[in-house]
Amino acid sequence: MSAPSLDAVPTLRIALLGAGTVGTEVARLLQDNADDFAARVGARLELVGVAVRDAARARDGIRADLITTDAAALLDDNIDLVIEVMGGIEPARSLILQALNNGSSVVTANKALLAADGATLFAAAEKNNVDLYYEASVAGAIPLLRPLRESLAGDKVRRVLGIVNGTTNYMLTKMDETGADYSEVLAEAQALGYAEADPTADVEGLDAAAKAAILASLAFHTRVTIDDVYVEGISKVTAADIKAAQDMGFVVKLLAVAELTPDELGVVVRVHPAMVPRSHPLASVRLSFNAVFVEADAAGAVMFYGRGAGGAPTASAVLGDVVAVARNKVRGHAGYGESDYADLEPRGISAANTRYAINLQVADQPGVLAAIAQVFASNNVSIQVVRQDGSGDEAFLLVRTHQATDAALSQTLAALREMPAVRQVVGVMRVEGEVGH
Amino acid sequence: MSAPSLDAVPTLRIALLGAGTVGTEVARLLQDNADDFAARVGARLELVGVAVRDAARARDGIRADLITTDAAALLDDNIDLVIEVMGGIEPARSLILQALNNGSSVVTANKALLAADGATLFAAAEKNNVDLYYEASVAGAIPLLRPLRESLAGDKVRRVLGIVNGTTNYMLTKMDETGADYSEVLAEAQALGYAEADPTADVEGLDAAAKAAILASLAFHTRVTIDDVYVEGISKVTAADIKAAQDMGFVVKLLAVAELTPDELGVVVRVHPAMVPRSHPLASVRLSFNAVFVEADAAGAVMFYGRGAGGAPTASAVLGDVVAVARNKVRGHAGYGESDYADLEPRGISAANTRYAINLQVADQPGVLAAIAQVFASNNVSIQVVRQDGSGDEAFLLVRTHQATDAALSQTLAALREMPAVRQVVGVMRVEGEVGH
Repeated sequence: MSAPSLDAVPTLRIALLGAGTVGTEVARLLQDNADDFAARVGARLELVGVAVRDAARARDGIRADLITTDAAALLDDNIDLVIEVMGGIEPARSLILQALNNGSSVVTANKALLAADGATLFAAAEKNNVDLYYEASVAGAIPLLRPLRESLAGDKVRRVLGIVNGTTNYMLTKMDETGADYSEVLAEAQALGYAEADPTADVEGLDAAAKAAILASLAFHTRVTIDDVYVEGISKVTAADIKAAQDMGFVVKLLAVAELTPDELGVVVRVHPAMVPRSHPLASVRLSFNAVFVEADAAGAVMFYGRGAGGAPTASAVLGDVVAVARNKVRGHAGYGESDYADLEPRGISAANTRYAINLQVADQPGVLAAIAQVFASNNVSIQVVRQDGSGDEAFLLVRTHQATDAALSQTLAALREMPAVRQVVGVMRVEGEVGH
Repeated sequence: MSAPSLDAVPTLRIALLGAGTVGTEVARLLQDNADDFAARVGARLELVGVAVRDAARARDGIRADLITTDAAALLDDNIDLVIEVMGGIEPARSLILQALNNGSSVVTANKALLAADGATLFAAAEKNNVDLYYEASVAGAIPLLRPLRESLAGDKVRRVLGIVNGTTNYMLTKMDETGADYSEVLAEAQALGYAEADPTADVEGLDAAAKAAILASLAFHTRVTIDDVYVEGISKVTAADIKAAQDMGFVVKLLAVAELTPDELGVVVRVHPAMVPRSHPLASVRLSFNAVFVEADAAGAVMFYGRGAGGAPTASAVLGDVVAVARNKVRGHAGYGESDYADLEPRGISAANTRYAINLQVADQPGVLAAIAQVFASNNVSIQVVRQDGSGDEAFLLVRTHQATDAALSQTLAALREMPAVRQVVGVMRVEGEVGH
């Protein structure tokens, strides 16, 4: 397609909801690269209004006359395309629904809303024959949702393993590389602005869980909400856990995992700390970088890597969607909508297939290993490696299992805790990612 | 979008050109996953014919009555979608043009044809308002072209660095990890089937060059052909080069590089061996895996990783395109076509901005380092690191430069070769990829 004359092209009217870090960057790029956008889309993208909560606050690079506090009125002003980067459930949900029902297409970065109630929004988009795109909602600038939705649409995805929260990956990287404990790295991350004053959403895995629900929905053609996701954060991960992982050649990561069950009728979606082999591509994802590793039948292993957050990277993802949606508008049709035909059953954590690493403080007496091995065997959990460390009051058994259901592993743990020879279950962590990828 | 009844959906007629490793796998997956495809597309995908050169050869899993040697007649049989996996320039070009002019959409994995004469094919697709998709032509199963074309469409790409040839990456990995020389690893790769009996296209960089042209075209919205690509293969890389790179903390990779020139009016596309810092994400891409690293203004660094070749991975990419094209067919429109509005000038290697590592055997006498440093300075090439090794007849200087134009570096090399104190230029290699990504 050759360059059209930029004077002759039509104009699309754009409304921006939210002018925080991402919104300001989106506005700046729309303005600075206006000619490029016009050439790539075949229409000028005209920012006609920016809705904010506090009109008095200065917004770098956004013309004052564009600012409004009346988002609903802005949406009714003959808008072609709405960019929602305000975040949160309400009023974002009501405004997006208003926009879709007005016939405007919507680009959003709102993971919390999509993970809570995406179905309502997608239905409204389909009913009105408009687009609802959301690449920026997961893993910032990493092109991820479009590849899952389109490039792998001819394949069968088995499992998705993702590092999708930059704050916790930064903290776990620091713990791994410096030996520091959780509270130290949290304080450092807060001082550097990588973690918020109230870090709950990040460290307890809730942010990752929202992204896991979105990834699972796309990968398995099934509607998954955040309520379907098992969540465990990193606040209980200790320096000792990290050290034990290192000794075995592993690194601890907060993973978002979505996987097909063996009967292929269900999907398990979970977020928790996990040990990953150092040789796995995810192990080398450091600091605040994100990456998502996808295993599909024909494609094999595929990984996407990049910056998961920040104003500019998120704006890049938002604007990629803006170009796609705007191209559709110019051509007079919506893109292909959501695919949830497979309708798999979201199952609880007990159906997950995982491996475990278990660190036990045990009585230093003959027969303990045999007794413990018997407990694993009677719960149908096969031991892959066992190592004895120390002696006397400091006698430890490090056990790594083969794959088993989480239910079987939980029963094994419960039985171990009942054993007099087991003084203490010092550490327990799931193990993910095959060696050799 | 809910699952439509699979009985009620329309049928799309598919023709397959070529039944080698990829074609056979495509046919198998179309058949095995027929219900999934119907649900994802909203139409049944019916394979109505497979054109081959030799009808007598058995094709695993392809019904004998589908096989024909008359590709042109098959294309005229009311076909909605053509999958071309025969490879080579002719007859592939004529057949694809016939298909497009018939109003059929086309999915192809043919990098050689696209890199030689993509413009003709894209023009035919646009004229006939049909799709020509080619995700499988670069880096096999790694979703790469669609993200470049769409996800990063709102961003400005500065540089693309790719490991896009599995054969040479396998060989360089083996040289790096075992210390073996080029001829040994080539023989091993041939014995294992990773390299062909005539390995020229792989080891001389021609396969990578075709892919580089395709990547550059997409990343820079500019038509680039293989004739615009500077190519240097790996056949001159020695065990000593690999060792020298290791000593400096680097690994040698065959890179496809496409970059915007500093004036933003040109693009340089090149394929050559390069030293990459061990800490760079591309350094850990081992064996026959592929990866492409993209640097964009807003997104920052993004990397895509996976299997670059093989029947199943390539089939995955082909079928992703088939689903996308088929969805467009069902909805009665073509997707957004090629974007070449930027029309940047392809410039020669002399305009490239690179760094160099140079290994010089020098006379062991006072003042040599100063004289050599003067040669670099007078050619406006700044030295980053210099190291002296050995003495007497075995005195060496290892020089690593800051970024400079390839022209300046070539002039420096020419001047060095003229110096009596320089006994021999032992090794020269470009250096790519910043430390710390």
